[in-house]
Amino acid sequence: MAEKQDDRKVTPRSQDFAQWYNDIVLRAELADYSPVRGCIVFRPDGFAIWEALQAELDRRIKKTGARNAYFPVLIPMSFLHKEAKHVEGFAPEVAVVTHGGGKELDEPLVVRPTSETIINHMFAQWIHSHRDLPMMVNQWCNVLRWEMRTRIFLRTAEFLWQEGHTAHASSEEAVSETLTMLEVYRKFVEEYLAIPLIVGRKSAAERFPGAEETYTIEGLMGDGRALQCGTSHFLGQNFAKAFEIRFLDESNQMQHVWQTSWGVSTRLLGAIVMVHGDDQGLRLPPAVAGTQVVIVPIYRKAEEGAQVMASARGILESLENAGLRARLDTREGLTPGFKFNDWEMRGVPLRIEIGPRDVASGEVVLARRDRKGPEAKSKAAIPEIAMRARTMLDEIQKSLFEQAKAAMASQIREFDSYAALVKQMEGEGGGGFANVYWCGNPVCETKIREETKATCRAIPLNQSGAAGKCIVCGTAANERAYFAKAY
Amino acid sequence: MAEKQDDRKVTPRSQDFAQWYNDIVLRAELADYSPVRGCIVFRPDGFAIWEALQAELDRRIKKTGARNAYFPVLIPMSFLHKEAKHVEGFAPEVAVVTHGGGKELDEPLVVRPTSETIINHMFAQWIHSHRDLPMMVNQWCNVLRWEMRTRIFLRTAEFLWQEGHTAHASSEEAVSETLTMLEVYRKFVEEYLAIPLIVGRKSAAERFPGAEETYTIEGLMGDGRALQCGTSHFLGQNFAKAFEIRFLDESNQMQHVWQTSWGVSTRLLGAIVMVHGDDQGLRLPPAVAGTQVVIVPIYRKAEEGAQVMASARGILESLENAGLRARLDTREGLTPGFKFNDWEMRGVPLRIEIGPRDVASGEVVLARRDRKGPEAKSKAAIPEIAMRARTMLDEIQKSLFEQAKAAMASQIREFDSYAALVKQMEGEGGGGFANVYWCGNPVCETKIREETKATCRAIPLNQSGAAGKCIVCGTAANERAYFAKAY
Repeated sequence: MAEKQDDRKVTPRSQDFAQWYNDIVLRAELADYSPVRGCIVFRPDGFAIWEALQAELDRRIKKTGARNAYFPVLIPMSFLHKEAKHVEGFAPEVAVVTHGGGKELDEPLVVRPTSETIINHMFAQWIHSHRDLPMMVNQWCNVLRWEMRTRIFLRTAEFLWQEGHTAHASSEEAVSETLTMLEVYRKFVEEYLAIPLIVGRKSAAERFPGAEETYTIEGLMGDGRALQCGTSHFLGQNFAKAFEIRFLDESNQMQHVWQTSWGVSTRLLGAIVMVHGDDQGLRLPPAVAGTQVVIVPIYRKAEEGAQVMASARGILESLENAGLRARLDTREGLTPGFKFNDWEMRGVPLRIEIGPRDVASGEVVLARRDRKGPEAKSKAAIPEIAMRARTMLDEIQKSLFEQAKAAMASQIREFDSYAALVKQMEGEGGGGFANVYWCGNPVCETKIREETKATCRAIPLNQSGAAGKCIVCGTAANERAYFAKAY
Repeated sequence: MAEKQDDRKVTPRSQDFAQWYNDIVLRAELADYSPVRGCIVFRPDGFAIWEALQAELDRRIKKTGARNAYFPVLIPMSFLHKEAKHVEGFAPEVAVVTHGGGKELDEPLVVRPTSETIINHMFAQWIHSHRDLPMMVNQWCNVLRWEMRTRIFLRTAEFLWQEGHTAHASSEEAVSETLTMLEVYRKFVEEYLAIPLIVGRKSAAERFPGAEETYTIEGLMGDGRALQCGTSHFLGQNFAKAFEIRFLDESNQMQHVWQTSWGVSTRLLGAIVMVHGDDQGLRLPPAVAGTQVVIVPIYRKAEEGAQVMASARGILESLENAGLRARLDTREGLTPGFKFNDWEMRGVPLRIEIGPRDVASGEVVLARRDRKGPEAKSKAAIPEIAMRARTMLDEIQKSLFEQAKAAMASQIREFDSYAALVKQMEGEGGGGFANVYWCGNPVCETKIREETKATCRAIPLNQSGAAGKCIVCGTAANERAYFAKAY
């Protein structure tokens, strides 16, 4: 068997987090740079994670009553201008189509940066009576925002996402929908992606342009920086008034609808890498792993090979019959060691090693990606392999979440001194979450942002209201907020 | 129960096919016009068909070994120019982004009309050795072509599709892949959408810009016009040379790869309407129907209602347990007659009617959407309902295909006189498929097109080669071809 040099070691995470991240994304073949400014290519191994995530989230979204639809990618520039804050937020970062079919267009069209305007224009045609409400649609699509500084998955000019848009007969119902979706996102990201979260509402400065209130789920990446993982917006009647979406209520009065919008995007792929990855590469939660179990056959002589491969194929079949996504590595010309490293880089949660002696003894080696050293390995009898693998995958899913939870917990700190907060946030990397009393005054928020680069990530819901002092100005405050440097 | 006027009758198909088509699409709420020129909105009932279709086709594509990926929606204008015929074909119909982030771009970007150029640019980075081949990716995405005359689903500026792109070590392998995908499409459209097809290769004039050979599946719509339902292209080495995609073969020689691309789009939704629809509305093949069975409860008095609803809910549960997509129509204030018409308009394949007498007798009425009059109705004992429904849905799937096959067969005619062909194609509507000997000379093809509006739709594969005479020029011809007026 030819020895092939493994030249794919990644930069250690502790040495250079940003470089470590890029190394993994590129070497695990999740994505690649493209020749178009700020746009990336999702390679099959990266896109498979998105597909798994999409299938599960789509199921959960539909369960709430929303249905999928699809609206045009191009939006008349004038639509953006109908909602004052919306245009202020998005106009600077749109891509503009000025020519079509060889001619200059009468009105420029923007490639959607988000679809509130075009969807609400259609809602106005479709909604007439309270019987038409609630109207709940969701769209999986590409969007484009001309970002100045881009980073694969986390901030790219084009990205993929889902955007839900709903219209309701009352403010209460719309607020309730906003919070329902926030909880759908929280459960999904924690249960499925094994990423622990901080949940809360955004400060006014961090609100979605055009929203009355924005709610958020925030994760903490391996370098101590926060990442907004999803948002749910209560839009009030802002778009309803801009687009004249009205309905005849039960007492025959014309009313404007109350609305929400909510979305998560392919930046979640970046979160998976940054929360779970290690110096060996990616570590995928079993729920989203395209390949959950890989079988690596080990043999030197051809006569051993036949036996080993027959046994490996039997194991593959039993895993597939148990509903697991399994794969047999039949590549030739590569050493077992190279293959082990390769699958570790690609983040496959569980590896089965099988050689001639294992066939003879009827036991194979299981290696878990969530553990290191001797603790990662155990033996299992071949007939029990599917049952063992299934149990172990459940354990790995839980263990990745627990590891991430512990990592986040160690990076959440309460501060009551502004100087201590500033000190914590000094330096190039992250500084974790700072949990502080804040009076709610934007002046204090701005001071923190300018002096520490930390922004208000979330104000937790349902706080006790216990009195405290604002960490900046010292005046009375009755809410705590999480500040962090963020992606 | 309030009587609500049913104002949604469609224009009879025989009276005005185009208007009938639009009526159904709009009234069955499959799609709507949008404020953006040539772009449509896919409403939830229309998008649900696309989702069902997509799930099944995606499964079949993956089975061939292709994997999904995602490439940028924007493509540098210069990329289009790298393949001479490709730019000639697509440049006139692209939408061009000239500004981004408030600034004029150095190089204009086009919104992808198809992705050969950007994907092959990436293939050139990824393919080095014969070990990297075959490379097979598929992408589900939106594309944009600035069409002059648009028609919902069939020809819109923006549409959704999948585009597969593959690279191979030999011409033979690439040709074989092209034909494999053609057969995947044929089986999928016939089995799943119940649309019978003509299969063959395109004439040189009708080829994809940049292809060596284009293969096609062609359906026949209810008005006797043909619709191209999917294409599979053998690209030879045209893009490989334009984008320098080379690999080191097994004897250490640098070679250009051989390529294919293939796609089907949301125009298939239009085909479903135009092939299966009737004057009552849509008729959906059970395989793609979002709702396969609808239960309509019928009662006048409240005390009857409780009993009927309890029984209806039991039936719903048994249908769902049998894996059927079922729905109970609980809407109030609508007559049963209105509901029957409504579900017929929406194309639900099977309706169950249940009233107090049915509950008492333990039998319900089944109404099949694929038949008319008394033949459409039968009775079934409530405990057997799931089994009966399942069998009946299979029958409906087959029966829609058989009806469409008979309709197409009646519209395929062999001609050996040019005058007869011209006569057949006269008039506004379609004229069916004309099966004629053609010498292969583009001059004869052009004459047919100019004088009859019929184009060469497909030249069937594996012909006997029996000698005949070209229907236009009378010279020797050894192939027959299908000509038709087409959408």
